[in-house]
Amino acid sequence: MLDTLQNKNVLVTGGLGFIGSNLAIRLVELGANVTVIDSLIPESGGNKFNVSPIESEIEINNGDLRDAEMLSKAVVGMDYVFHLAGQVSHGDSMRDPELDLGMNCISSLNLVEACRHNCPDTRIVYTSTRQVYGVPQELPVTEAHPTLPVDVNGINKLAAEYYHLLYDRTYGLKSTVLRLTNTYGPRQQIRNNRQGFAGIFIRKSLQGEAIQIFGDGEQRRDFNYVDDVVEAILLAGCNEACFGDVFNLGAPAHYSLNEFIDALKTYRDFESSKISFPDDKKLIDIGDYYGDYSAFKRVTGWDPKVDLNEGLGRTLEFYQKYQKVYLS
Amino acid sequence: MLDTLQNKNVLVTGGLGFIGSNLAIRLVELGANVTVIDSLIPESGGNKFNVSPIESEIEINNGDLRDAEMLSKAVVGMDYVFHLAGQVSHGDSMRDPELDLGMNCISSLNLVEACRHNCPDTRIVYTSTRQVYGVPQELPVTEAHPTLPVDVNGINKLAAEYYHLLYDRTYGLKSTVLRLTNTYGPRQQIRNNRQGFAGIFIRKSLQGEAIQIFGDGEQRRDFNYVDDVVEAILLAGCNEACFGDVFNLGAPAHYSLNEFIDALKTYRDFESSKISFPDDKKLIDIGDYYGDYSAFKRVTGWDPKVDLNEGLGRTLEFYQKYQKVYLS
Repeated sequence: MLDTLQNKNVLVTGGLGFIGSNLAIRLVELGANVTVIDSLIPESGGNKFNVSPIESEIEINNGDLRDAEMLSKAVVGMDYVFHLAGQVSHGDSMRDPELDLGMNCISSLNLVEACRHNCPDTRIVYTSTRQVYGVPQELPVTEAHPTLPVDVNGINKLAAEYYHLLYDRTYGLKSTVLRLTNTYGPRQQIRNNRQGFAGIFIRKSLQGEAIQIFGDGEQRRDFNYVDDVVEAILLAGCNEACFGDVFNLGAPAHYSLNEFIDALKTYRDFESSKISFPDDKKLIDIGDYYGDYSAFKRVTGWDPKVDLNEGLGRTLEFYQKYQKVYLS
Repeated sequence: MLDTLQNKNVLVTGGLGFIGSNLAIRLVELGANVTVIDSLIPESGGNKFNVSPIESEIEINNGDLRDAEMLSKAVVGMDYVFHLAGQVSHGDSMRDPELDLGMNCISSLNLVEACRHNCPDTRIVYTSTRQVYGVPQELPVTEAHPTLPVDVNGINKLAAEYYHLLYDRTYGLKSTVLRLTNTYGPRQQIRNNRQGFAGIFIRKSLQGEAIQIFGDGEQRRDFNYVDDVVEAILLAGCNEACFGDVFNLGAPAHYSLNEFIDALKTYRDFESSKISFPDDKKLIDIGDYYGDYSAFKRVTGWDPKVDLNEGLGRTLEFYQKYQKVYLS
């Protein structure tokens, strides 16, 4: 099915970031003509090294999606738009809510407007987040679960979802939304603490630093290795049945933070301990979360292939090889 | 219960607009110290004449809520904030979605941020809209109904709701949200078509112009006279049990558009006819809507007092008296 991407014009927003760069690399393998947009906002995860394997084969645009005029030109002729750009830090969204609004809402609204007017036949995949649900009322969380975000980021990502769905229904701009859960793997920004605990724990394990777990460590999560997420995004874009709808990603197994730490310890030596939740973190913590991804599996056949142990092994190998880029 | 507002410092955003000005007048009657903020954006409904009965008794600030710095100063010392400012036209939100985002999302985020930092003990009532539900899946619509807005305005108002609820839960900033339905009455901007069909029909009936109904006219709606809505807003602000939650307004009776026209015809002579829906209107039409307001009634005792016939009589009398201001 992904053969259909060969020779297609594809735009990846946030294409120098974690998932975006892995997606761009896979798209080049599939024979697509890839353009990435990434404004390389400091600390947010974009990094030119991420696309070094394909640098000569892609176009790189360092525009900012909040610039509607830039975007109107950038989307012309695109067959597919994978919209991954955005602010992802829950904590940052509480410290600077208006920046989060700009990077998630204004950017997304600009994108669907640009596509509607300049490439109305394109297909759009928007990567949202399980954060839109807030604290799960029941597990696993299905797409029908109420949305009550616990931070500004969840609210703004939800609004961005709605723009995509509205433009699909109203203007026929084919758009689908994936709600990602904890994604980990190569090319994630792990230098600072902005991209979730998986990256933080991976960094500390590599540096041999002690890991502090907030709470008792029994919070359960579902983890997706980035290659599986890339596959999901591509399948969503190539599957007509996905448009106009929202789908969870997820994993067949769920792990507690303690189990995640144990898996890391099979590869690396480090100390770990438990401390009580800092106030600002507790406020936006959602407790246990794992998603029901059966709807997406039914429509696309997607099922994650890389289990946590294997994925962590590959991830650690990558960062050990490129530690000068990602850690120093 | 509303006696508690006496001598309190009260801010009404959008206070020169339709509901805002009626609210400000009532607040002055109740003995509150009233400040209104209204940037008088052309065509959006703000009108200094609206507050002429109380002009010498209130402060008027013509700042724009998108200006965070202005707002930070304006909220200092406020005991209550009634947040009514916003873009309300569904059609305009589709024609200029970014303006709607600014007037609804950025403004509301600025407001809760300003209050959190500068008047953390204030009480906030945010007036949202039934438009957040989209097309009703069942009637009457309760607050648990899924939210799937059919226009950009509904999406942005929903995000603004979430900001208020989040700041209530996370920072203890007491906030409640009312989802208003079709409100009509004196001081509505009826000169252009931006504030819903009730205002349009009222204008045409006053001018003796023929009214064209889109579709068969059997779409049912619930109508609230503005005095009842003002009472609801005040009760919400004075009732501790409302904070942190969302409530529908509504009416004990529902009327079709044909019945609304018939009620107007008991007062005025005009022709009416039916035409098929224009494409741009059909796209964002929600069909029948009426809300279940039993939750709000249970908590506050609120029940609309003015029925459609009486309300239309009072409304027409007002506009006949002041037609130079509102119609010419």
